[in-house]
Amino acid sequence: MDQPDTVNTRSDLAARVVAWQRAGERIGLVPTMGNLHEGHLSLVRALRPQCDRLITSIFVNPLQFGPDEDLERYPRTLEADRKQLAAAGVDLVFAPGVKEIYPRGDQASTVVEVPTELTGQLCGRDRPGHFTGVATVVSKLFNLCRPDVAIFGEKDYQQLLVIRRLVEDLDFPVEVVSGPIVREDDGLAMSSRNHYLDPGERRRAPLLYRTLCELAEGLAAQPDRADALARQAESRLSEAGLEPDYVAVRDARTLGPPGAGPLRVLGAVRLGSTRLIDNVAVRPGAGT
Amino acid sequence: MDQPDTVNTRSDLAARVVAWQRAGERIGLVPTMGNLHEGHLSLVRALRPQCDRLITSIFVNPLQFGPDEDLERYPRTLEADRKQLAAAGVDLVFAPGVKEIYPRGDQASTVVEVPTELTGQLCGRDRPGHFTGVATVVSKLFNLCRPDVAIFGEKDYQQLLVIRRLVEDLDFPVEVVSGPIVREDDGLAMSSRNHYLDPGERRRAPLLYRTLCELAEGLAAQPDRADALARQAESRLSEAGLEPDYVAVRDARTLGPPGAGPLRVLGAVRLGSTRLIDNVAVRPGAGT
Repeated sequence: MDQPDTVNTRSDLAARVVAWQRAGERIGLVPTMGNLHEGHLSLVRALRPQCDRLITSIFVNPLQFGPDEDLERYPRTLEADRKQLAAAGVDLVFAPGVKEIYPRGDQASTVVEVPTELTGQLCGRDRPGHFTGVATVVSKLFNLCRPDVAIFGEKDYQQLLVIRRLVEDLDFPVEVVSGPIVREDDGLAMSSRNHYLDPGERRRAPLLYRTLCELAEGLAAQPDRADALARQAESRLSEAGLEPDYVAVRDARTLGPPGAGPLRVLGAVRLGSTRLIDNVAVRPGAGT
Repeated sequence: MDQPDTVNTRSDLAARVVAWQRAGERIGLVPTMGNLHEGHLSLVRALRPQCDRLITSIFVNPLQFGPDEDLERYPRTLEADRKQLAAAGVDLVFAPGVKEIYPRGDQASTVVEVPTELTGQLCGRDRPGHFTGVATVVSKLFNLCRPDVAIFGEKDYQQLLVIRRLVEDLDFPVEVVSGPIVREDDGLAMSSRNHYLDPGERRRAPLLYRTLCELAEGLAAQPDRADALARQAESRLSEAGLEPDYVAVRDARTLGPPGAGPLRVLGAVRLGSTRLIDNVAVRPGAGT
């Protein structure tokens, strides 16, 4: 097929989903905001063999954007997205408008609040309300698409943990799996927001990943110096014009302070008017 | 059967529910806090013909009780409840413990917040956090029991509207139906909390219903005097020792200020240490 079937309304979606459920088919969901790149497509390909029917949702969710953020300019490329999804074997694209998802307006919706121990730090501190918007729309997408399994990218690592916690706390009958970050040749994590970078910014952007990698290596060698090493990383980014929102070393499963368990290094910077995030795993003993 | 099957864990529940879903059976849910009376049983009987498999949950949800409320003394009568449910034709009782529903503790859970236009007034004003607790546990019960249809009593009228809004806003694939209030011979709405009343309080308690009925009749005749009539009703209750938390006239569908649509009269009083609530519909033109 040239294009996968696309539905724009909740009722058309429900008709398809209910029929698949009745037939005993296993449903997979890849939630996206569109403007698909290799990162998204890797999630589609990873989930495809795990389900009978694969849905990709394309919805730029206003509830997860702050008033001064990039909701208006966020790239929308539906026709190109659909072609790529067809090639990747998606069965159905759910591409609703804002009115379909928030008939009363997004500010009038019931919301889902994941505990602030997880959502009140890092990106959640810099973007108040962001994870409430994420948890709310993902709850809605789960109820609408009724997936058995859903996949989220590790690029948005804090989001991944928020969604795992949401599913655990509210008992959604959904298995959550994740896919690794896909990078450009120079290490920059793929992101729709990379389109915002001008050529000079684009050349400097890979420093975020390099700095996080070096921090992770340093930590493996000096696990007790997490805070000092993170501050050094922030200085280095700042000197190169990547203004850090944060660089942090966290427990990889809880985002709590670093302890005996696996660690994750996470960073967010402003490069011109663009906010970039990235993260890397710390391999125990890798630097020793 | 003498007793319906009872499961206490989420995994045992899921095994039953998944098997029913695969067989294409329609699942109904009657969520309760146990200590069942004729009000609950009327909901069971109303839903029984609408589904193939009927689940009743029995769970006293700590998250919907305030710190100074009656969580500890709330009556628990599981064995008597199960006998009544067997007679009413329930297929499965889900009776989990608190640790099963809130493994991290109820205060550490992701929560669901229905907009304050609905939850910030009446019982929600008098019981901060109450409807957050209700919306959260009902979301969990929906995800665990996966009902096609669920029934809630009109006795908790504000709760019924909160749940309808929750389902609408978060797109739960659940049909919500309601059952009318069941009353004692003297008009008192049936409630587990009636057990708290001493004989003297029990004799005075029906005044709540009588007063709300008279208010509703007065309104039908004098629709523009909602506020004055509600204040009169509060005075009358107060003089009889039923200390009003509120008496209110509201749009029956939104709980907004009375307008052109159907109206509902709602009241809450303290009688000794017991809080009683009740409500009645206003029949247009009934008093003219």
